[in-house]
Amino acid sequence: RIQVRYKRLLALTSYLFTHPHTQWSLTELSAALHVAKSTLSEDLLFIKGILEETGQGTVVTHVGAQGGVMFVPALDRVRASETLAAWTARLTEPDRLTADGFLYMTDLLFEPRMIEPMGELLAFPFRQQKVDVVATVETKGIPLAMACAKALGTDVVLIRRDSRLSEGSAVSINYLSGSSRRIQSMSLARRALGRESRVLFVDDFMKAGGTARAAADLLGEFGAQVVGAGVLVATREPTHKLIGKFWSLLEWDETLSTVVPSVWAKDLCAERKGDTDDRH
Amino acid sequence: RIQVRYKRLLALTSYLFTHPHTQWSLTELSAALHVAKSTLSEDLLFIKGILEETGQGTVVTHVGAQGGVMFVPALDRVRASETLAAWTARLTEPDRLTADGFLYMTDLLFEPRMIEPMGELLAFPFRQQKVDVVATVETKGIPLAMACAKALGTDVVLIRRDSRLSEGSAVSINYLSGSSRRIQSMSLARRALGRESRVLFVDDFMKAGGTARAAADLLGEFGAQVVGAGVLVATREPTHKLIGKFWSLLEWDETLSTVVPSVWAKDLCAERKGDTDDRH
Repeated sequence: RIQVRYKRLLALTSYLFTHPHTQWSLTELSAALHVAKSTLSEDLLFIKGILEETGQGTVVTHVGAQGGVMFVPALDRVRASETLAAWTARLTEPDRLTADGFLYMTDLLFEPRMIEPMGELLAFPFRQQKVDVVATVETKGIPLAMACAKALGTDVVLIRRDSRLSEGSAVSINYLSGSSRRIQSMSLARRALGRESRVLFVDDFMKAGGTARAAADLLGEFGAQVVGAGVLVATREPTHKLIGKFWSLLEWDETLSTVVPSVWAKDLCAERKGDTDDRH
Repeated sequence: RIQVRYKRLLALTSYLFTHPHTQWSLTELSAALHVAKSTLSEDLLFIKGILEETGQGTVVTHVGAQGGVMFVPALDRVRASETLAAWTARLTEPDRLTADGFLYMTDLLFEPRMIEPMGELLAFPFRQQKVDVVATVETKGIPLAMACAKALGTDVVLIRRDSRLSEGSAVSINYLSGSSRRIQSMSLARRALGRESRVLFVDDFMKAGGTARAAADLLGEFGAQVVGAGVLVATREPTHKLIGKFWSLLEWDETLSTVVPSVWAKDLCAERKGDTDDRH
């Protein structure tokens, strides 16, 4: 009998882990796992208790006709902390600087194991912000934006460098790039974003903040409210960016050639499990 | 005591689920979870049994100095099948065709819940192919390529439309686009790909196959072997593509305005759990 119960609990647990942020009615879950609803309710309560106690997340229950249960994972602080350390180590490898003084990081941005924990970490400050959608400008910020959106249980809206025939009519803006002082443009398909959306802007890199500023302006054309801007790496200089508040996971000091975790990211990883996790 | 054992099993299960395709020595796992190695071995065996019985994956053990245990998730056929159905339904919504006859699907490509199960499905035929890396051409295939790479436990290499100063020296090729007959170019940073890699090419869309053909040529310049090409949607016409064999999850018939799952994808979802899963 103990075997049977473990088996049922583990099957349910792994089901929840593979479908985070997904709401299930008890009827759906009971059909998927071949367990009676009454047993399921009891098991869910038990699992919820252990997930919270071990700081792994929680099971949220919504009652009513649209109701159901949903697994909300907590931030995996150990993994986030290890991944932050791996980023600082790999970005300070001797051959990371190109001949033109750029920090090469395209390879790391496209490694699932390197980018997913960073997306989860970047999403954390925005958990309570009712973000409708994560926006990014093509190309290199896409994996980070996807990981961030997944952690928030939402989707990504892609701002293009040129408008595309395949996306129908679009709104475009031109802007002066903050660091290179060249005229650049970005464009968003009209159908891509509903009115009055709450948007989190995510990108891989920020220097002067011109891209983030322009994206905020473009999103403003859709009546969107930008609730925040988050990047993987920001340069230390200029300290004053063209966008007000922003969150960066790593700081690159071009003069000293150092890459260090930002203070908030380090602090967040160092907090004890469950200290600040929202309990919904 | 039941509480204690379940808590331990749950911690271990969730640890394995959040680190798929990652090899751990028993020493590392025992330190991370504060559990004696002997207990751990027993627990792993127990979990392996349940994962296999419920068709959720397996725990692979490699013995020897380089050895350890690794969680290999199985293809979630139910989720893949439901997601295939959701794609066909959403791609045949009345407003999916733009005024210029393009099938708008950018929004869906950037929804984590819509794209991840598709990446897992597309990865399945290549599980035994020792894929070193997944390659894609920017931009819209990136989320699919990332999901596919994650399912294979590997990384993505990004082919650019233009070479970037920030990525150092690059190899570029020009080619004639298969459908529009325009000259296009693509470029890959020299440092992005090692010699003799086994590469899976992934993209969101294929019509004539010109992009896949050009990517294979470019990858060939690096001595890479392209073990396959996979796309989310392929047009029915032309039936003869510029690349030999390819795998598409969905087929779009432009004349009939229908989108249907491909035969192999449907068959794969319909197989009973565990029928063909590799057991390593």
